[in-house]
Amino acid sequence: MNIQSLLPRSLSHEFIARLDGDVLLIGMRSLLPFEVRSLASRSAEESAHAIGSMVTQGGGQLEVALWTLVMEARIHGRDMERMEEVRRLLSNVRRTNTTVARELDGIWAEVEALPASSFARGIEDIVISRLEDYDANYLAMAEVGSTLIEDGAGILTTCFPEHSFFLSLALAGMDGRSFKVYSQETRPYLQGAHLTAPGLAEMGYDHALITDGMVAHVVSSGQVSLYMTASDLATRSNWVVNKVGTLTSAIVCARYGVPYYAFSTGFDDRYQDLEDFKVEFRASDGVKMCQGMDTSTGDVQALYPAFDIIPPDLVAGVVTRGGIAR
Amino acid sequence: MNIQSLLPRSLSHEFIARLDGDVLLIGMRSLLPFEVRSLASRSAEESAHAIGSMVTQGGGQLEVALWTLVMEARIHGRDMERMEEVRRLLSNVRRTNTTVARELDGIWAEVEALPASSFARGIEDIVISRLEDYDANYLAMAEVGSTLIEDGAGILTTCFPEHSFFLSLALAGMDGRSFKVYSQETRPYLQGAHLTAPGLAEMGYDHALITDGMVAHVVSSGQVSLYMTASDLATRSNWVVNKVGTLTSAIVCARYGVPYYAFSTGFDDRYQDLEDFKVEFRASDGVKMCQGMDTSTGDVQALYPAFDIIPPDLVAGVVTRGGIAR
Repeated sequence: MNIQSLLPRSLSHEFIARLDGDVLLIGMRSLLPFEVRSLASRSAEESAHAIGSMVTQGGGQLEVALWTLVMEARIHGRDMERMEEVRRLLSNVRRTNTTVARELDGIWAEVEALPASSFARGIEDIVISRLEDYDANYLAMAEVGSTLIEDGAGILTTCFPEHSFFLSLALAGMDGRSFKVYSQETRPYLQGAHLTAPGLAEMGYDHALITDGMVAHVVSSGQVSLYMTASDLATRSNWVVNKVGTLTSAIVCARYGVPYYAFSTGFDDRYQDLEDFKVEFRASDGVKMCQGMDTSTGDVQALYPAFDIIPPDLVAGVVTRGGIAR
Repeated sequence: MNIQSLLPRSLSHEFIARLDGDVLLIGMRSLLPFEVRSLASRSAEESAHAIGSMVTQGGGQLEVALWTLVMEARIHGRDMERMEEVRRLLSNVRRTNTTVARELDGIWAEVEALPASSFARGIEDIVISRLEDYDANYLAMAEVGSTLIEDGAGILTTCFPEHSFFLSLALAGMDGRSFKVYSQETRPYLQGAHLTAPGLAEMGYDHALITDGMVAHVVSSGQVSLYMTASDLATRSNWVVNKVGTLTSAIVCARYGVPYYAFSTGFDDRYQDLEDFKVEFRASDGVKMCQGMDTSTGDVQALYPAFDIIPPDLVAGVVTRGGIAR
């Protein structure tokens, strides 16, 4: 199945990352839905900066990181010292989400084995093959996720304008099941308002955008039967790290018996539990702004924890391509 | 005690509502903290519109309603037909918050007893006396509220840029107790970012502005020992109606054993419980905007419940001037 036709435009490979000669065009997810624009990256440093400054996010980080390898190989040829530097830059840009680091770990032996004569072309082949794997993975995750969506479901989500979620909906929809999605706006970056809700509208699904504080209102009134999010990190013991706001909503859902499922592309086996996990903090100015406009005065202090840790007692299961880990 | 000196400028009588001849200048709370401006009202219709469109809020509604009576009396003299119309307009503008209606009920016999010869002057005397009563009431509520603030307290609040809250803090502070206030930004109108946090900064108190979704982050990490909000309606059986977002935070606090207290200027005895209370919905465009800017696309649907109903099992007590109803 070609999944591209099932997805909103914001998730097309074409938009997310496209290599044009030696220049990587990175779809500026941060400007959607008001402006469709790409940022030109000419080096791994520029790509890492784009990922670090949230120009691209979610699965987009992976696609950008992979195409950056191809770009660097086109520019520098088989310079393994530079390639190691590229790998380091791209792996370290996000501390909490380790999927890029794990992805590069996974293909590195192959990259090292490539001959100088077809180095860039060889990496491009690896990348294209990996992207096909991703699409297959997304679809496999969605096949699992869609089994959770019963006819008449009310699905709450925080952020999550991602392949695995939209495809879960698409598969449930193709099966004739009806549902309504409640998309939290997801402050401070408003991904729910900027990406998830417009994606749902573009796909023609019943939906309602709500502010983050409205979650108890919709859950307590019986409109929600299922809560689904992505995860930036998940352990085999069902500890989940995800965007700040997820713990609040998971607690609300628990009170009303609504199960919470996090999607994961793979468990992080470096952790047994996340009792002592240190959450990344971002510059507090992010909280004092909305869409680039100040929301408060200069003398106000703010706090910006980027992620929540959700303990296993709040997690009904972690959705992976292999099934649901409960 | 003159409470005016203890309060941020946004709560001064001078700013909230000031009658200048036949024109009522209504402080445009909706523009704070970026612009200090007043709206001129020349009739009860204009005042009702200002209250209805959130130009003023909270205790400001009462002050605007009372001064509107004086203005109308100055313009029309003792025209009781017009005064009944004024009363009806001002009482019905907000459906959930019934304090204006109850206040006008309370003074109406006095208004009706005034002679035509000194009608406007007589109403003005009633209003000034009532404002003194309010200040005394706010202080009495704060005396009760401040007893809940222990040295080292972490106080979470949603919205609540009101006299009784700021005065509770002031009294605790004057008593030498230290505390830190976590102010939720309170989407969609951002009163926490626009008013509460700047008020705390102006008063010199330790504080942190957070987005609404961050509540579980700060509560789960042990930084919060107390949750305090206003209430738009409270019953003697400790059912509370307050701004949407309050239920979400109260549920999170309950999970971590943090007590929730709502402040009330008076119980609404029309209700035994609020099991079947119908919450007011506002135009969903409010949710699709932030500070006047669109956050989503035109084809996106949104939901805007204005209030939450908080059941008694989540309410540790209702703070009134007479004490804490538990």
